[in-house]
Formats: sequence, structure tokens, C-alpha cells
Amino acid sequence: MNTEKSSQTGSKKTLTFGVVLSGCGVQDGSEIHEATLLLLALDREGIRARIFAPDMEQAFVASHLTGKARAGEHRSVLEESARIARGRIEPLTNVNSAELDALVFPGGFGAAVNLSDFGTAGSAMRVRGDVESAILGMHGAGKPTGYICIAPVLAARVLGKFQPELTIGNDAGTAGALREMGARHVDAPADGIVIDRQNRIVSTPAYMLARRISQVADGIESLVRALREMALEPRK
Amino acid sequence: MNTEKSSQTGSKKTLTFGVVLSGCGVQDGSEIHEATLLLLALDREGIRARIFAPDMEQAFVASHLTGKARAGEHRSVLEESARIARGRIEPLTNVNSAELDALVFPGGFGAAVNLSDFGTAGSAMRVRGDVESAILGMHGAGKPTGYICIAPVLAARVLGKFQPELTIGNDAGTAGALREMGARHVDAPADGIVIDRQNRIVSTPAYMLARRISQVADGIESLVRALREMALEPRK
Repeated sequence: MNTEKSSQTGSKKTLTFGVVLSGCGVQDGSEIHEATLLLLALDREGIRARIFAPDMEQAFVASHLTGKARAGEHRSVLEESARIARGRIEPLTNVNSAELDALVFPGGFGAAVNLSDFGTAGSAMRVRGDVESAILGMHGAGKPTGYICIAPVLAARVLGKFQPELTIGNDAGTAGALREMGARHVDAPADGIVIDRQNRIVSTPAYMLARRISQVADGIESLVRALREMALEPRK
Repeated sequence: MNTEKSSQTGSKKTLTFGVVLSGCGVQDGSEIHEATLLLLALDREGIRARIFAPDMEQAFVASHLTGKARAGEHRSVLEESARIARGRIEPLTNVNSAELDALVFPGGFGAAVNLSDFGTAGSAMRVRGDVESAILGMHGAGKPTGYICIAPVLAARVLGKFQPELTIGNDAGTAGALREMGARHVDAPADGIVIDRQNRIVSTPAYMLARRISQVADGIESLVRALREMALEPRK
């Protein structure tokens, strides 16, 4: 134990952020660019990433050529997410707020059909138990969470009673659903972020609005820097 | 026609680079980070990307959790590549060197089992006809091509008689195979590039060597800048 302590005293603490994936592909899983650019932004800030995904079957498998669901096909969210993680992934139930300095959810339709059922239920949505536990655990420990693209719907549902301030860009329908769940929605540009200091939440619209991958990268870089700052703030 | 001409005269020409994918996932398709970071680097340099993939069945489907092939599963290289391309993808037979300023191949095992059979045949490898045509078309037109990670094996096979200078990092076995096919191999660090001015080829080791995603991003950014410079050079 002493060894561990002294190694932390000597050098600046390395932060560890959790990243929660929901498959591999914008139409039925995690948005690949958002997830990858999040991993890049973390690495460039010297932050270690631990990648998680729920061990479950995908709600459906979409052809990314036609946009349509393919009948009779089955894929595992954990297995497909492992493609983005290059094999280094853990089941979502491994999330322990004591081991993480922040937790971030990239977007993609997987957040709305695998991690939750927002895609079909709208503001009547339910969030998977392991996703809810992960978010509540971090929030209860006063640790920051981040939400990209459509993922803020998860924060709206799980943390609605704390009136979180969130952005999904400027889509009126989605913003309305967030408000119905108790969140305050703030419009933001594709590469912008919205910071809720009270609830320690950062969100960015990414492909809810972005027309270029560089806008997504810029927004995610800002999100990571804001989360890093929060994670380093002295705890109340 | 006059309209098109005058619009090009007035402003700096926008370059268009082709990107050739081979699936979606390091173990049976395109390496996702390499492909995504290539698209980011292109966009940040103001270069338009056209994304292509062969219309074929994958050689196999690998579990990215276990690293093993899954018996009885079938996936389409074009459909899976469309996940990285967010649906905006074309069959590889659409490649026309007259419409492109450069052509780039990200890595991932898909380059060695779908685009070619290097993964099983080594230096006795064969390259798919549409891949070979695309590379020969660009080379014949004096236009630059780029190869990331394991993809330089394609250039070694197709352009071996021109003795291309390439890097796949420092793996002795793979470098030896490249030499057997006629290429000159030069060692390079994970984030380095090797430039063959004669053949207008740039290569970078990426995940053949990289331990961090930021090294991959750095190498690919250098590769894109070098290809851009070549593409803007006055033609001989």
C-alpha cells in the first residue's frame, strides 16, 4: 500500500475516465467517429480510458447502406463495441465510481435503442439498470459525467429530478423530450459544449448537428478538457 | 462547362482523396481508429473524402472479444465499411483516377484477408482485381497513394517492380515479406512516415507499432500532409 501511495505522491495523478459504448455503428450502436475521437481526446490529455459496454443483445442490426433493420440478424453489444475498443473492454457492471474520475457516453442510435428505449418511447423512455447505476453512482460521488450527441437523453431520464442543464444541439423535438423529463435544454452549435457545474455534467451536440467530422472532434476535445478540469477540482 | 471552370479558377482547388475500407474492425476489417483518424485529418486539411470498399463477403467474422473467427457468420465488406463511412460509401469499382487527387488505404486485418490474402499467403499473396486496378490507375496517372499499418503489403505486391520504398514499422517478418515482393523496407517509429517521391507513395506504421491512439493520429496527420503536398505539386 505504501508503494502505491508514494508513486502517486511523486508524480501528477493520472486520471481515469470510463467510456460507455453501445455497439459499433451510428444506426444501431455507438457512433464510431464520436467514440474514436473521444479516445483520441482522452489520450492527448494524458487521461487513461477504461471502456465499458452492456452485455446484451442489440435491439436490432441496421444495414448502414440502406438504413433499414435486417430481419433475423443478432449481434452482441459487448462484442461489437469491442471492435471500437480493439478488444480492451469490460462489461458495464464493472463500473465502480471509486475507480473512475469521470464517465462519458458517446452518441449513436445505440444510446437510444440499446442503453435505453428513447428511440421508440421518447420522453416515456426507460434506461437499462446497469446504465442507470453507473450514472447515479458517479453523480452520487460528485464525479463528472459527459454526454455526446443523443446520449444526453440518458442524463435527462436518470438525473431529471436534479434539473440537469444539457444540450443536444437545437432539435426541437428532442429538446422538448429532455424538458419533459425534467432537464433544462440549452441550444449549442455542433462544436460547442454546455456545462452544468452544479451536477458536474458536460454535453456536446456532435453529429446531432455536425456536418463535418472536424466539428465533432472540436466539440469532444472541449468536452474532455471541461471534464478534466472538473475532475481535478477539489471535492466539496 | 464554363461555370465549372470559372468556379475552379476563382478559388483554391478543393482536393478529393479516395479512402479504401475493408470492413469494420481491426481483426476482420478496417482498423476503426486508423480509418476515422484519416477522415479527421483529411477534413482538417480541407480535403474532401470519397470512401470506397469492395462489394464482397468478408473472409471471416472475428469476435473482437476473443480474437477468434466465429463459424457460420457472414458479413459484407461494403455493408460493414458503411458503418465507418456513416452510409456515404461507394463500391471500389467506382474508383477513377481522373476524379481523385490521391488514394489512401487504412490498415486492419481486412487489408490482409479481404483486399488481399497476405494474412494466409504471405509474400505469395494475391491482391483483389479491383484493388489492383485502383492502385495501378493512380500510379499510372502519377497520382499519390498512401498506406497505413499493414496496408503497405498491397503496394509491395502491386507495385513491386517499381521497387517502392515502404514502412510497416520494424516487424522483421512483415518487412521481409515486403522485400521478397520487390519493395525496399525502411524502419520507422509508430508516428513516423516514409516518403517515396519517385513512386509518390507515403506510408506510416500506425497500429503495427503504436501503443497509443495519439501516435496513430500523429502519423496519419503527417501522411495526409505529405500526400497533400504531392497532390499539389505540378505534374511532370
